[in-house]
Amino acid sequence: MSRTEIATLGEFGLIDRLTGNIEPVRETTVKGIGDDAAILDYSGRRTLVTTDLLLEGIHFDLVYVPLKHLGYKAAVVNFSDIFAMNGQPQQITVSLGISKRFSVEDLENFYSGLRLACEVYNVDIVGGDTSTSLTGFTISITCIGIADEERVVCRNGAKETDLIFVSGDLGASYMGLQLLEREKAVWNGSGDFAPDFAGKEYLLERQLKPEARKDIIQALADYDILPTAMIDLSDGLSSDLLHICKQSHAGCQIFEERLPIDYQTAMMAETFHMNVTTVALNGGEDYELLFTVPLHLHDRMKEIEGVHLIGHITKEEQGCYLVMRDGQEMQLRAQGWNPIAED
Amino acid sequence: MSRTEIATLGEFGLIDRLTGNIEPVRETTVKGIGDDAAILDYSGRRTLVTTDLLLEGIHFDLVYVPLKHLGYKAAVVNFSDIFAMNGQPQQITVSLGISKRFSVEDLENFYSGLRLACEVYNVDIVGGDTSTSLTGFTISITCIGIADEERVVCRNGAKETDLIFVSGDLGASYMGLQLLEREKAVWNGSGDFAPDFAGKEYLLERQLKPEARKDIIQALADYDILPTAMIDLSDGLSSDLLHICKQSHAGCQIFEERLPIDYQTAMMAETFHMNVTTVALNGGEDYELLFTVPLHLHDRMKEIEGVHLIGHITKEEQGCYLVMRDGQEMQLRAQGWNPIAED
Repeated sequence: MSRTEIATLGEFGLIDRLTGNIEPVRETTVKGIGDDAAILDYSGRRTLVTTDLLLEGIHFDLVYVPLKHLGYKAAVVNFSDIFAMNGQPQQITVSLGISKRFSVEDLENFYSGLRLACEVYNVDIVGGDTSTSLTGFTISITCIGIADEERVVCRNGAKETDLIFVSGDLGASYMGLQLLEREKAVWNGSGDFAPDFAGKEYLLERQLKPEARKDIIQALADYDILPTAMIDLSDGLSSDLLHICKQSHAGCQIFEERLPIDYQTAMMAETFHMNVTTVALNGGEDYELLFTVPLHLHDRMKEIEGVHLIGHITKEEQGCYLVMRDGQEMQLRAQGWNPIAED
Repeated sequence: MSRTEIATLGEFGLIDRLTGNIEPVRETTVKGIGDDAAILDYSGRRTLVTTDLLLEGIHFDLVYVPLKHLGYKAAVVNFSDIFAMNGQPQQITVSLGISKRFSVEDLENFYSGLRLACEVYNVDIVGGDTSTSLTGFTISITCIGIADEERVVCRNGAKETDLIFVSGDLGASYMGLQLLEREKAVWNGSGDFAPDFAGKEYLLERQLKPEARKDIIQALADYDILPTAMIDLSDGLSSDLLHICKQSHAGCQIFEERLPIDYQTAMMAETFHMNVTTVALNGGEDYELLFTVPLHLHDRMKEIEGVHLIGHITKEEQGCYLVMRDGQEMQLRAQGWNPIAED
């Protein structure tokens, strides 16, 4: 593949090359890239805004993350935040910090992933900022979405006896990451990074090319089910469920035997001598939806495919617990990020 | 000053500490920090969104930029983009990449500047993202604003014979930067960085604590003047005026003798053996407003303080020129950023 040094284009040339033929498709996009700010128009609906900063070496490793996948994922994780409010993503802005080791083609690969995600989810790229970086690749994406005023779902509405559901399955993305990290350690640094991942495709896909659960939001709307609280799983089930409980002033009880875990996840956890329940609770980056619905909607929820009842909301003073297979209760703990733990 | 290691707080503790008592003041802020996305409500008006990524070593040098000033400036430069659309900034999101060399107090200093700017400009902080960084300090800010549909001003509306105005003066921020860079080079790296800047305060203030020209936007509204095109001066007069001309399919003629330059800027340029006109054209980071108004508003524009008529719009085929004091014409060129030039 040819390599064009970024310096040959300059800032404005690079921006033109990357964004020149991006045409808005959303009705709510009045004006996209090319002015001091994009112009959006959301008359009469709630506007949602979310933002994510991705840093090389912390959030991704370019040894095993193809730039196109990185672009796709960077967009999708923001869409996921908008869906988690029961909204619809509409526009994103994209700011990049790039170092000289990147060629124009590298950035085009990144943008092709970004644009694919925007096509799939019907979202416009409406602006951003491009800078040199002295160090790693830096990505900052902001997503704007809309929602009906009476259908926005926050984290704070869970009530005692509400049922707790999660979409998809848990821990696969984390096991995909472990797998990639192991192969990277084995890989001697020469030649392309191309180990054999046969039979583990699902884990890699979950890590490298996650999807946001637009389909679940659609299904909930189709069945006229409005969750009382919702969050997307980025930090891990445990941390994210605690966010709902804390903000709702509630407790919860979830059941180990009900945690949805894929066969490949379970197999890989065994290979790595990891407790698969711990992986499911704390793995992170699942980008599934975790939400609560009133008890009386139990039957209607059965109509929705791909969601799993994992427990229920309790009183705040009862705390937040996982009921193990043996009947013992384990208190849920937030993992979150910690600068020490990252070292 | 005490130093709290960030690791002692963890991610969620840090976020609570930094943003715990931020209460929205804007009517358009339905819900701020603490959910997957902020909820805004802009029924019936244009929504504007702009974003900036600031990287240590590229956009700022912590040797001479106090963190509080950095926070202030990071917010203000985004407000400036919204004003440049003839809008009013309403909310910002703030994403930070931080390394272990920062203490909690450092980040609180940064946030105090950010919050001061938000107070001064009446803007809400509604969300963001905080990550560890393996390298430098990374700041990404997105600003949302509103504007009346019929009063949004873009870069593409300048017409032949329109008058070109610029607010404030030019080149001071760049000379402030040169001054700081010189003192840094002189400074031997031991002890605090505290050189004597007496008599150069204006240059430093323009570099370290710029303001966005909300007052000019207000004055234009008070006198019922709607610019045909507008941009804020971040890259420098030359580049930014070329943006207006390119997007408006127009040419321009501006006059060297009319460029507003402060006494301190002129003195410092002489000290550095720089051509002060070049500094005014290409300095960048002035955050003044550059705009065009129809010729028939010439008399009304005289009522507005702090703006200067520097030239007029011509036909596209006439090109973009600076008329020098000796009557010679010099073609305007974009400087922009260039990864090579940065080295």
